[in-house]
Amino acid sequence: MRTQRTRGRILAAALALFNERGEGKVSTGNIAQSLGMSPGNLYYHFRNKDEIVAELMRALEARIALDPDVAPDAPGAIEDLWLYLHLTLEAIWEFRFLYRNLDDLAARDRRLRERFNRIAQRKYHGVVAMCEGLARVKAMRATPEEIRTLARNVLVVATYWLNFRSLRGRAAAQEADLGLGAHQVMSLIAPYLVGDARRHLDRLSRNYIE
Amino acid sequence: MRTQRTRGRILAAALALFNERGEGKVSTGNIAQSLGMSPGNLYYHFRNKDEIVAELMRALEARIALDPDVAPDAPGAIEDLWLYLHLTLEAIWEFRFLYRNLDDLAARDRRLRERFNRIAQRKYHGVVAMCEGLARVKAMRATPEEIRTLARNVLVVATYWLNFRSLRGRAAAQEADLGLGAHQVMSLIAPYLVGDARRHLDRLSRNYIE
Repeated sequence: MRTQRTRGRILAAALALFNERGEGKVSTGNIAQSLGMSPGNLYYHFRNKDEIVAELMRALEARIALDPDVAPDAPGAIEDLWLYLHLTLEAIWEFRFLYRNLDDLAARDRRLRERFNRIAQRKYHGVVAMCEGLARVKAMRATPEEIRTLARNVLVVATYWLNFRSLRGRAAAQEADLGLGAHQVMSLIAPYLVGDARRHLDRLSRNYIE
Repeated sequence: MRTQRTRGRILAAALALFNERGEGKVSTGNIAQSLGMSPGNLYYHFRNKDEIVAELMRALEARIALDPDVAPDAPGAIEDLWLYLHLTLEAIWEFRFLYRNLDDLAARDRRLRERFNRIAQRKYHGVVAMCEGLARVKAMRATPEEIRTLARNVLVVATYWLNFRSLRGRAAAQEADLGLGAHQVMSLIAPYLVGDARRHLDRLSRNYIE
């Protein structure tokens, strides 16, 4: 019990430091220090930093594993899609150090790469399923091939948006960049929507950036 | 004269090795060796690896600095757009080591980051200008805000496509991935095109992946 709580505290402290400074600049010593814990106590829970990173990637996978809901009517289906993308981007923001450093981490650790690929695969199928649902209720007009291409673009923009922003900006990505990211992702889908569905998404997306 | 030729040979050899193995895994010694040149001779031309990387970034900037052409009729404007994106993606492929390692390089060297930002800014304005041209000849239906959002998405997908592919795949990105990347980028623009213009782009884009 006590052990579980300590593990949780270590993971939360590591996540905060990784997000703030970048994983490469944070040692297990820094994590222990930020908790007022001895390095020995930390090592009792995690043998090294890679184990902490792996555990955080597992937490991201659990956090991001949403099953897409598809309402039987167009306004409901649009809101489901919006919520799905919103929650996905929030999870990416929460674990942003993983996304900042994706290529590096994937090159370093095959299991992290596999886990990332499972997450991406699941998101891809989620977006495809939601778009098929929208097509079924006549809120979207797109061929099956267009839906697959669209889902790949949703994944690329969602995955790399924060990197792109921090590359383009002068400072690290801010939470406001996430709102703009959501707007960018929604805008990929918007032109395939028809009639009221499109206006509905535009409204939701606009609220997001204001 | 001789000096210029030797510099050019060093840059070409460095580019090939960086693309093949990743910049982090190639030393100036490796570059000299691949040319059968003494390290001292290489150092006479470039003081260190960072200077070679900076020079390659300059070469990319020169290579990618295309002025967008906008034909006065819809089929011409579509072909201009297609060619513009095609040449841009080819330049990214040619200097792919820079794109594989963008965050790292930008964090390491402020001038590289500024140069990348100049390239991105120029591309952004190029895509906006071409879309405005398409709207003028009635081949595209999009508001000015939609065009700006679209241009940002074109940049994100073009910039990160190869990274995404190599993360998702089991091997380093192949030249064929570039064709698929071009298809992904074109598909961002396609839904904003109307009538014949859209069919024309679909045809060009399909040729690309077949």
